[in-house]
Amino acid sequence: MAESAVPAPLDNDRLLRALLREPLDRTPVWMMRQAGRYLPEYRKLRQQAGSFLALCQNPELACAVTLQPLERFPLDAAILFSDILTIPHAMGRGLYFAAGEGPRFERPVRTESDIRALPVPDPGDSLRYVTDAVSLIRRELCGRVPLIGFAGSPWTLATYMVEGGSSKNFALAKAMLYGRPDLMHQLLEKLAQSVTSYLNAQVEAGAQALMIFDTWGGVLTPAAYREFSLRYAEQIIAGLLKSRGGRRVPVVFFTKNGGPWLEAMSETGADALGVDWTQDIGDARRRVGARVALQGNLDPGVLYAPPDVIREHVASVLEEYGHGSGHVFNLGHGIHPEVDPEHARAMIEAVHTLSPGYHTT
Amino acid sequence: MAESAVPAPLDNDRLLRALLREPLDRTPVWMMRQAGRYLPEYRKLRQQAGSFLALCQNPELACAVTLQPLERFPLDAAILFSDILTIPHAMGRGLYFAAGEGPRFERPVRTESDIRALPVPDPGDSLRYVTDAVSLIRRELCGRVPLIGFAGSPWTLATYMVEGGSSKNFALAKAMLYGRPDLMHQLLEKLAQSVTSYLNAQVEAGAQALMIFDTWGGVLTPAAYREFSLRYAEQIIAGLLKSRGGRRVPVVFFTKNGGPWLEAMSETGADALGVDWTQDIGDARRRVGARVALQGNLDPGVLYAPPDVIREHVASVLEEYGHGSGHVFNLGHGIHPEVDPEHARAMIEAVHTLSPGYHTT
Repeated sequence: MAESAVPAPLDNDRLLRALLREPLDRTPVWMMRQAGRYLPEYRKLRQQAGSFLALCQNPELACAVTLQPLERFPLDAAILFSDILTIPHAMGRGLYFAAGEGPRFERPVRTESDIRALPVPDPGDSLRYVTDAVSLIRRELCGRVPLIGFAGSPWTLATYMVEGGSSKNFALAKAMLYGRPDLMHQLLEKLAQSVTSYLNAQVEAGAQALMIFDTWGGVLTPAAYREFSLRYAEQIIAGLLKSRGGRRVPVVFFTKNGGPWLEAMSETGADALGVDWTQDIGDARRRVGARVALQGNLDPGVLYAPPDVIREHVASVLEEYGHGSGHVFNLGHGIHPEVDPEHARAMIEAVHTLSPGYHTT
Repeated sequence: MAESAVPAPLDNDRLLRALLREPLDRTPVWMMRQAGRYLPEYRKLRQQAGSFLALCQNPELACAVTLQPLERFPLDAAILFSDILTIPHAMGRGLYFAAGEGPRFERPVRTESDIRALPVPDPGDSLRYVTDAVSLIRRELCGRVPLIGFAGSPWTLATYMVEGGSSKNFALAKAMLYGRPDLMHQLLEKLAQSVTSYLNAQVEAGAQALMIFDTWGGVLTPAAYREFSLRYAEQIIAGLLKSRGGRRVPVVFFTKNGGPWLEAMSETGADALGVDWTQDIGDARRRVGARVALQGNLDPGVLYAPPDVIREHVASVLEEYGHGSGHVFNLGHGIHPEVDPEHARAMIEAVHTLSPGYHTT
């Protein structure tokens, strides 16, 4: 069981312990999109890089951006700065970002022959810029906090690939799902294989926890969610490296608007579930029992309010979750670009101040 | 108890009977946005009128558009062609539609003095074009099917008024909700009064059932939903005329993504709840018991699939709801503009063909 090249031990492993429901002194906290547009230092680097994609594809810049929020705030985790659409891009779909319009693909995936021709990318090749960024970030972190790697869920990636970008009604993706479920499954199968090897490559490069973002699972019916989203998450999780450097690599599975399906999500093999703010996290805990930890779930909109109000809402989320480990404090979705960074600080500091009371024995 | 000027009795009262859970021969069916862009005859009239707003504000055109889907399909209800934003427009906010960008307001509502200055519109005055349309539609329907009137929920209207239009993150509305809940309540209170008198005016003009659309209730936390959306729905329903012309006027309350809160919604006094497609309607029925009827819940995305697939999914929804009255078949949200009208027909005909089996005694 000897592992080679073990980097510095972790100074702060609260995230990993909470995801495995091990005892702790306080609740760990990080924020989805913590390296993002709400930070002036991020906006500056992005402008210098020229585009969002240039930031993602340059390991030094991706590393610098990943570390920015950690230099400002006492966060308990770093998350790789990247995008869920790196995989479809590596499949040759030509990702680009139209100003103010979100992601687009030059070559959407619409037909049987489009899908048959899709490669399963070798992460050591066309996604090397990501694993290089992971290695570099791990080195620069020097064991301060764990690094989270991530990928989009196959269903979520498929929506962008079939639609050719963001969508409101998911007309083309749903036309395929309902009209040609066999094709949709072929696409999802290739994506599941790609996500599995991509996440494993992130672990091999140094990611210490993983998160699967199922941003669009919540637009499905319960039956379609099980068939087209959940089962591929389960397949991916079954194929992931379970530990690295002698330490378990926990996996968080997050379906936005997935609240009705938390029980089923807790059976996927994930160590933890992301919970958005439309659920009471105490109810969520009662529903999933001791099967998984929970990550969430402050409404990102709370950060528009003054610091004293933010503190009250942090207190409510901590109180709803209640006593004991198994809670990673986070927003219920990514931090919004309009938020004042000092409001993010108020949230983080409130977790530091208020959470120890829930961990006394 | 004598009522004056009773119009023609209803030839087809299945909608009203289903909403009150009375025995029936088959499940009634209509579609949210059934008078809309998927119909070529609608697109033609809209082009002639010059704009969506011009259609809404001209009672003859609004009547013609309302009747279009009934001339094509064997539907069991007409729904007033209008917009939820007529009320903020009547409050002087200056509604307009920017091409391809959805609704906008010239004068958003942001401050305490903005809110204090807002009038509660007299529906007989600034909303007269709506009640005139209702009267005209009732006359033209000649009792074929019932006419549904509607309004937006106070919270949903407030989001548009505060944001100045559509929104993704609801930054300004949430900043007010969390930062100045007292102001948000003042706004919601005025809107609740306005919606109540507006819906009652629609009933007096001839609306035979009512629907309250809470399109954005699902972006709230459970606690905020109860405080800022649900309680105003309850207040409105308590203030509505309960019957007209000797017949009960049932009320449907619909919160998109409101699945987690169906139990609470069923206690508002509504006769029926709208259910979107992210819920299993059989589970929803078990949860609300005999307190309310249910309306829904085919995924509008199913209508992108071929007719035989549509028929299978209609069969599933009917089977999930199960035996007995209390179900109004509908989509889980408005019909999408890209849908082929013949696919809508396939859905409607499938309900006609397949639902009688669930109503035999």
